[in-house]
Amino acid sequence: MTLSAVLDRIDADLPQALDRLFDLLRIDSVSTDPAHAASCRTAADWLVAELSGMGFEASRRDTPGHPMVVAHGGGEGPHLLFYGHYDVQPADPLELWETPPFEPVLRDTPEGKVISARGACDDKGQLMTFVEALRAWIAVEGSVPTRITFLFEGEEESGSPSLVPFLEANAEELRADLALVCDTGMWDRKTPAISTMLRGLAAEQVTIQAASRDLHSGMYGGPAMNPIRVLTRILGQLHDETGRVTLPGFYEGVAELSPEMKAQWESLAFDAEGFLGAVGLSVPAGEEGYSALEQIWARPTCDINGIWGGYTGEGFKTVLPAEAHAKVSFRLVGDQDPEKILESFRAFVAENLPADCSARFAMKEPSRATVLPVEAPEFARARAALSEEWPKPAVFAGCGGSIPIVGHFKEILGMDSLLIGFGQEDDAIHSPNEKYDLASFHKGMRSWARVLDALTSKA
Amino acid sequence: MTLSAVLDRIDADLPQALDRLFDLLRIDSVSTDPAHAASCRTAADWLVAELSGMGFEASRRDTPGHPMVVAHGGGEGPHLLFYGHYDVQPADPLELWETPPFEPVLRDTPEGKVISARGACDDKGQLMTFVEALRAWIAVEGSVPTRITFLFEGEEESGSPSLVPFLEANAEELRADLALVCDTGMWDRKTPAISTMLRGLAAEQVTIQAASRDLHSGMYGGPAMNPIRVLTRILGQLHDETGRVTLPGFYEGVAELSPEMKAQWESLAFDAEGFLGAVGLSVPAGEEGYSALEQIWARPTCDINGIWGGYTGEGFKTVLPAEAHAKVSFRLVGDQDPEKILESFRAFVAENLPADCSARFAMKEPSRATVLPVEAPEFARARAALSEEWPKPAVFAGCGGSIPIVGHFKEILGMDSLLIGFGQEDDAIHSPNEKYDLASFHKGMRSWARVLDALTSKA
Repeated sequence: MTLSAVLDRIDADLPQALDRLFDLLRIDSVSTDPAHAASCRTAADWLVAELSGMGFEASRRDTPGHPMVVAHGGGEGPHLLFYGHYDVQPADPLELWETPPFEPVLRDTPEGKVISARGACDDKGQLMTFVEALRAWIAVEGSVPTRITFLFEGEEESGSPSLVPFLEANAEELRADLALVCDTGMWDRKTPAISTMLRGLAAEQVTIQAASRDLHSGMYGGPAMNPIRVLTRILGQLHDETGRVTLPGFYEGVAELSPEMKAQWESLAFDAEGFLGAVGLSVPAGEEGYSALEQIWARPTCDINGIWGGYTGEGFKTVLPAEAHAKVSFRLVGDQDPEKILESFRAFVAENLPADCSARFAMKEPSRATVLPVEAPEFARARAALSEEWPKPAVFAGCGGSIPIVGHFKEILGMDSLLIGFGQEDDAIHSPNEKYDLASFHKGMRSWARVLDALTSKA
Repeated sequence: MTLSAVLDRIDADLPQALDRLFDLLRIDSVSTDPAHAASCRTAADWLVAELSGMGFEASRRDTPGHPMVVAHGGGEGPHLLFYGHYDVQPADPLELWETPPFEPVLRDTPEGKVISARGACDDKGQLMTFVEALRAWIAVEGSVPTRITFLFEGEEESGSPSLVPFLEANAEELRADLALVCDTGMWDRKTPAISTMLRGLAAEQVTIQAASRDLHSGMYGGPAMNPIRVLTRILGQLHDETGRVTLPGFYEGVAELSPEMKAQWESLAFDAEGFLGAVGLSVPAGEEGYSALEQIWARPTCDINGIWGGYTGEGFKTVLPAEAHAKVSFRLVGDQDPEKILESFRAFVAENLPADCSARFAMKEPSRATVLPVEAPEFARARAALSEEWPKPAVFAGCGGSIPIVGHFKEILGMDSLLIGFGQEDDAIHSPNEKYDLASFHKGMRSWARVLDALTSKA
């Protein structure tokens, strides 16, 4: 009864909800540019005012960078923490925008009406779907259906320097039963998605040194070891003929996909040909026996992201360089241990070093993969709720990249995240003419109402 | 009888010979710098005047670049062509010279007196050893002992652009029975050397292309082929565990050293430890079973002189680049065919290209190795003559690099070259404070008198 009234209320209130989103979109809260610091504060204050107006105990929480917004409300039932970010990417290059980035408009497109502005999708439009769902709930019921905490960040597009310290300092206040994050996309316009697997990342720069200075190959070619030869020999052995990574222990913690998940992903009928064809490729280059989608979502990789050494200018120079360098990174899945993998890489390099060569390393702070508990009842309920709203049933999707907040929530606060978002592939986030489908906004609000109902109903 | 008189004459005339060399050294004939073009002409004219004064039919022969000097004299006996170059390297950085580069002086050093000036060794001092030997011969006998042609070049330090066309246009005039070249070094201060093996060079730039643009490894890592992975895999297979090059057919035309040559080289007791130790190395990295000296003089190599692709700046960027590049070169020996080797390399790359990758190549004009006929009687006679002059017997030496003129003489004029020079390792050619040992100059003149006698005596 409540849900259906809330959905009606959302439909009726859409013009006003859109006005409020436009207000937020007019604030040019670009976090990377110090000239926009005041705008970030303005956006935070705007959110505090909105949430206070809805009855939440909301406050702006200053940090060494841009402020956080925290709000609490409700009391009974599971404690849900909703996360979003009010900062946006820079709008450059301005001349490529069809309408000014901070003057939101509704535009007609062949795919339907869209909201055009910087941040329309990432993440202002997305976070407002949840805020407006709660507003409708309050309008109908007088209160929110469970205990709710909001956490809005203003530094997501600039590396989140204040996030971990803030979570650590306020762990008691922020720890909830489940985090809700609205910063991801749908599978397609008809199919909603819950992202349940995010790959981690480990990376290492390796330098091979041979002679103490560059040498001439007429004089030294033969007896002098060439570090590029050593480096290519080592890196050339990192994959076997079937595309598997050869590092000892690399696949420890990598689970095979469950038959259910495999079947679900197969039913998506991912267009690997179109995906690869768009960038001039045609054959999945990852491990044999896995589909392109599995290779992106469920399999780890080893990639050489950069290599350099010796003479790289025009023409030829018969130099034997003293050093050669490469940047190597690993996308991680499941329970792979980044430290162990980097250790295995360093050991492999060391074992393959010939006489006269030494190696040195410089690593990047690694992150583990995230695997969310799809078997938990919340995930099944949320999936069913989303499936009610959209033409096609919701899917559990993977993500080839990382979303660091999810790892922080798990590690610092011990809570899992339910990643539900309504972005589309053509939303042009981080690019000129960013947009958010009006349908994403409208049905996104309705989706959250359904998910809230599903997560909090006693049945 | 003649020889001993000529040697006496050389000894007596040393101060005057030195004056003449100093005159030539005062001309700043730097060929790479257009501002010095007039000086190159002056040096050429100076040589024409000297040779004319000695009775040769000498002329300056203009080219599109700096002029050649050609001179003819004598009549009876084998026709010998002497080659040298009157141009010098730039003198920069000037501030590192202890005395001005074009104001030659005699200096005392722990190793004896040295002539200090740009070009003192390379190649003015060296070429004058031959000119002065002939002058002494003429002074004693009234004429040269055989038919002699001089060829002096003024572009050796700037790539010799006019040389091949000049040789081709004047082949009849320049073709001789044997070329004499004075532009190399001794084994050490006591041991003269005839360079009889010079390595050739073939080089190729290879580019591996995969996707049509750079990709992000979060999105594409796995199914998208990474061209650096392909390049390292290919280049990492070019050597086997014993340091041998694995390209099919690579060793075709590579002869094993004769036991005599091997014994001779072993007797040189080359200080491989010191040679490698000076640049921070200790273990000869070339083919197993060959000494460091053999690896430089008598064995071919494959070296990666440069490699680049992807992100090479500070920190990390998880890019999958569209392209990766390398510059690969081969030092060649014996009868190795550069064209065939580059073909084999290209075929090897093509065979190892996975789906979705293409390769393109850009080659450098290759040169074959030079193997001079040490078994010819001229070589034995010259070696015996040199051994008479110096404390230790002369050796047949190799050279890890190339001396292009020797190949041109063979290919265009069909003649072999006798490479005899008196440079020392510490002569600092191409560097500040270039010098030539006074002993090299004095005993170099005496050496040529002996070699001329040996090559032309009827016995």
